[in-house]
Parts: sequence; structure tokens; C-alpha cells
Amino acid sequence: MRILSGIQPSGTIHIGNYFGMIKKMIESQNDGELFAFLASYHALTSVKDKEALQNNMFEAAVNFLALGMDPEKSTFWVQHDVKEVLELYWILSNHTSMGLLERAHSYKDKTSRGIQANHGLFSYPVLMAADILLYDVDVVPVGKDQIQHVEMTRDIANSFNHAYDKEIFILPKAKVDEIVATVPGTDGAKMSKSYGNTIDMFGSKKKVKKQVMGIVTDSKELDEPKEWENCNIYKLCELFMNEDELKDLQKRYETPGEGYGHFKLTLLDKINEHFEPYLEKREYYLNNKDEVKDILAFGANKARKIAQAKMEQIRELIGLKI
Amino acid sequence: MRILSGIQPSGTIHIGNYFGMIKKMIESQNDGELFAFLASYHALTSVKDKEALQNNMFEAAVNFLALGMDPEKSTFWVQHDVKEVLELYWILSNHTSMGLLERAHSYKDKTSRGIQANHGLFSYPVLMAADILLYDVDVVPVGKDQIQHVEMTRDIANSFNHAYDKEIFILPKAKVDEIVATVPGTDGAKMSKSYGNTIDMFGSKKKVKKQVMGIVTDSKELDEPKEWENCNIYKLCELFMNEDELKDLQKRYETPGEGYGHFKLTLLDKINEHFEPYLEKREYYLNNKDEVKDILAFGANKARKIAQAKMEQIRELIGLKI
Repeated sequence: MRILSGIQPSGTIHIGNYFGMIKKMIESQNDGELFAFLASYHALTSVKDKEALQNNMFEAAVNFLALGMDPEKSTFWVQHDVKEVLELYWILSNHTSMGLLERAHSYKDKTSRGIQANHGLFSYPVLMAADILLYDVDVVPVGKDQIQHVEMTRDIANSFNHAYDKEIFILPKAKVDEIVATVPGTDGAKMSKSYGNTIDMFGSKKKVKKQVMGIVTDSKELDEPKEWENCNIYKLCELFMNEDELKDLQKRYETPGEGYGHFKLTLLDKINEHFEPYLEKREYYLNNKDEVKDILAFGANKARKIAQAKMEQIRELIGLKI
Repeated sequence: MRILSGIQPSGTIHIGNYFGMIKKMIESQNDGELFAFLASYHALTSVKDKEALQNNMFEAAVNFLALGMDPEKSTFWVQHDVKEVLELYWILSNHTSMGLLERAHSYKDKTSRGIQANHGLFSYPVLMAADILLYDVDVVPVGKDQIQHVEMTRDIANSFNHAYDKEIFILPKAKVDEIVATVPGTDGAKMSKSYGNTIDMFGSKKKVKKQVMGIVTDSKELDEPKEWENCNIYKLCELFMNEDELKDLQKRYETPGEGYGHFKLTLLDKINEHFEPYLEKREYYLNNKDEVKDILAFGANKARKIAQAKMEQIRELIGLKI
């Protein structure tokens, strides 16, 4: 079973990214053949700054490698190193009705939020279809907001298969993990960079402490019993603690004598403890850029072999050779 | 001065194509560096048939070579052999506002004539911009209906140059040849495959004779004097005859004794005579497909060198490398 994940290259990652997506992606390496790419072409729809793009790609590569992306077992590459994807994107464009693209929620959402309506943003779902169909992917793990894009991929694949009367593309399935609770941010809303309520995964000790100490709570005093059920600190602790630890914490909430500051320090310890094992590996890759580049080049070679074989079939089928 | 011409791969060419475009393109090899490509990616917006696409590309290559395309002097290749163009296309897409594309006349015209509104057709002007900008082209000879596309290319180039604060793209100029008379078809309307009023350039003797004999005239008898001014036969003769020959022909029109059939045979002789010199070369290339492929591969190599150097600059500028 082939699983595809596109990684938005992003400089700082927070624990919302981790529990929402990264952890499952890393674990999926045991469920099937993982194809994971840093989506540099997609990033161009919004990032117009050279340094930002380069740093984000490098940091993302380092973070995923530190967190357990296994470049031998999986295929891990940068999107722009396998140019075949753009040829497929163009070919698929000719089998994508404008109506289909015009119905895309995410484009409508983005433009209604004032993001510039450029053609890259509009045609993003066709590039995503090419990402998926180029590698004969079976399963695409997505958030709910991306289900429509996988459905569009199926529509495009169907329409192409039909036009050339051949089942050349596998129809991929979206896999939406219903169990994933939304990770709350420090203010209780969904943790998101755009809300400024994140707790960084690999931030400096000082910064992470500041973020944790900034978690919003009610204003009960030390000598009052407290409610853990709806407390943002407790909700975050649930991500890092086992049942016994949570029981202990509940008791501490219910017993007067400790304040939210104490619980925050407990959470901070758990966060540090959780990401500690990855820090050394991360530091290593940050200081060995050439090795990271080699790993990505190795992944690109693996991906390119598959992509080239697939494109050879497609060109033959549609007559894109004399 | 670099001149770019995209060639719509098309099986049969007629004398309207020749006098409208081909002849000037061949002659432009003396005015500057001609870059001419068979637009196979563009063809995919309408051609969904493998054999048709392949035959059309091969026939177009053969025809242009027979008619004097000089692969040493000019750069002559098939679009899909230089994949860099699609990478530039994607990059430019992110600097192309949707409004610009929505204002394109040719898309609106095509869809209003019932052609399926697919995304390839819609985004065609962005691919055309990439075709032009990738090769630092100065001049693009176009028909009037294509002027807007060159203007769009300038807009896109400007917007990209501005975003990265560097004059990386030359702004191309459209060159519209005002002198070109529209070549009339056998019914007097503009000669066009879709009107079924063409005279083939390299058709069989029998077919071309049939087409010429089918030219529409008035019904004056042999023993009446005839008017050459508005006669379709005469108008076509103007393309093939010098002034003396035309004067002679005028006299024959004005002198009773000959009929339109005679003038048609005169035209037929001139057509055959005109294209005779190319027939042998055309036959040769038709029978030596491998040589045609080699010539196109040679051209693709020349084009690719330029394209790769340009893309290297662009990737560096926008950060599309780690």
C-alpha cells in the first residue's frame, strides 16, 4: 500500500503540527510504503521570498529526519527535484473541467480571506492530483478540509482514464483520521500559527517556557479546588501523559494548595521530556547540511525512477513522442 | 534579435497557412535568431487522440524542414522535449492574477463556440508566456487574435520582475504583419480548415486539382468578357504570379473565348510549379523518420541549453533549491 504525504515547508513547527500530522506520518512508515515530499512548488503559491523558502525547506527536512523519517524505508524528497510532476500536471489540466476547479472550497476560502487570487492558487488541486497520480498512490491521509481535493483527484483520474480508455491511474482514497482531537492552543482555540497561540516543538527553552506559562486559565487561587475538565493546561497534558499520570494530575487539580503555575511547569517538563530524544539528531542535521541534501537527493532518485517510468507510459499512451 | 514562433502541429497544411504564416517564418531566419517549436503541449488542449497527435507532429516537422527550416541556423524543436518550460509555467502561474486570465478573449471565444472549458485551455496564455520568457525572446510574430497573449506575457513578466526586484525577463514585443492579405478560400471566405474551403499544399495531384476546380466563380460563358477584380481564381493567382503574368491573365479575362476552367488550370499549374521544388525534400523526410527525429533532438539540445541556464538563474532567484 502506497501512502502519500505532502509536507508544507514551514520554519517553526509546533506541537499542534506534531500531534495533528507529523507523528502519524512517521508512524505510517510501518503501515505501508510512505512517499513524503516537501511541497516546494505548492509553497510558491504563497511564499515569494527566497530566504524564507530555502530556510523553510531545510528546516522541514531536518525536523522530519530528526523525528524519525527513514529515508531508506520511505521515499523522502523535495517536490521540485522530480520535474515529471509538472508534465503530468499540464497533461491532467487538459482533463480538468473549469467547473471542477471553480467548486474548490479551499480556493474560495482563501480568496474570501483576502489572499491574492493567482493562477497557482487556483490550479493547486491539479498539481495535487499530479503529486498523487504520478506515484500510483493508494491512500492519502488528509485533514477534513482536504477531502475534496482527493475527490477532485479521483474525478480527474477518471476523466483521463476514460478519455484514453485505459485504467492508467489508480483512484486514490482519502484517509481521514477521525480520532485526532484538535490540539488546543494556549488560548483554547485550535493551535495555529495564524492565531499566535502555539507552543513550539523545537523552540529555545526560554521561548517554550514563555509560551507554556502564557496558557490561558481561569483565575482560581492556590487554596481553591480546580476543574481539570475544561482546563487548557490539562488538555495539553493529555497529549503527553499516560492514564496514571493523568489521574495524579486530576487529584492535584482537585486538592487545594497548588496553582496553575505549578501545573504549567509539570506540562513544560513533559513537553521537554517528550522532544528531548530528537534534539541531538536535529542539532546534528542542522550542522550537516550537505548530508541532508544527500539524503534528499537519494530520495529524489528513488521517486524519479518511479515518476519516469509512469510518465513513459503516459507519453506513449497520449502520443507525446514522435 | 530573437524571434519565437510556435507551430500548431497540424497534419495537412494549405496555401492559406503558407502565405499567412509559414513563408514569413522561414524568411525570418534571415532577420534574426529564429526559435521555432512544434507546440505539442498546447496541442493537448484539444487533441486527445494519440495517432493524430503523433502524425500531426511528424508531418509538421517534415513540412517545415522541406520548406526551408534550417536546423543549423535556427533552433527547431518539439515543445515537450524541453520540460523546463513547464517548470517556468508553474512558477509564472503564481504571478498571474486570475483576473488577467479571465479577460483573455481567445478563451471566451472558444468556450462560447462550445469548446469544452478545461483548465488547459484556460491557462494556455501562461504556458505561452513561459514559451516566450524562457528563451529571452525579443519579438513574437502573431496574428491579430494573438496580440493580447503577448501583452499578457508582458504583464506576467513585469509582475515577476517586480516581485523579485530584478529584470530577469525581457519584455517581448508582438509583431503583427499588417501587409498580409487574408488568403481567400475556394468559396471566397478566409481559407480555413474549419470552413472546408482549402487548397492543400502537399495534397495529391488529384486532390489539389479537385480543390482548384471547385473554386466558386460567377457563371459567365466562354464567349463573354469576364471581371478579374473580384474573382476568387484571380485573387489566388495574385499569390503565385508576378506583375507581367497578372497583366496577361487580366487580358485573358477581358477577352472572350476562354472560361473559368481554363483560368483554374493556369492557377493549378502555378501552384504545382510553386511547391514542386519542395516535394522531393518532403518525400525524403517522410521516408527518413529517424533523420527527422535526430534533427528535432539536435534542436531540443540547443533549446534546452538555453532553457536550463535560464531556469538555473530563476531557481536561484526564487529559492527553489536548498
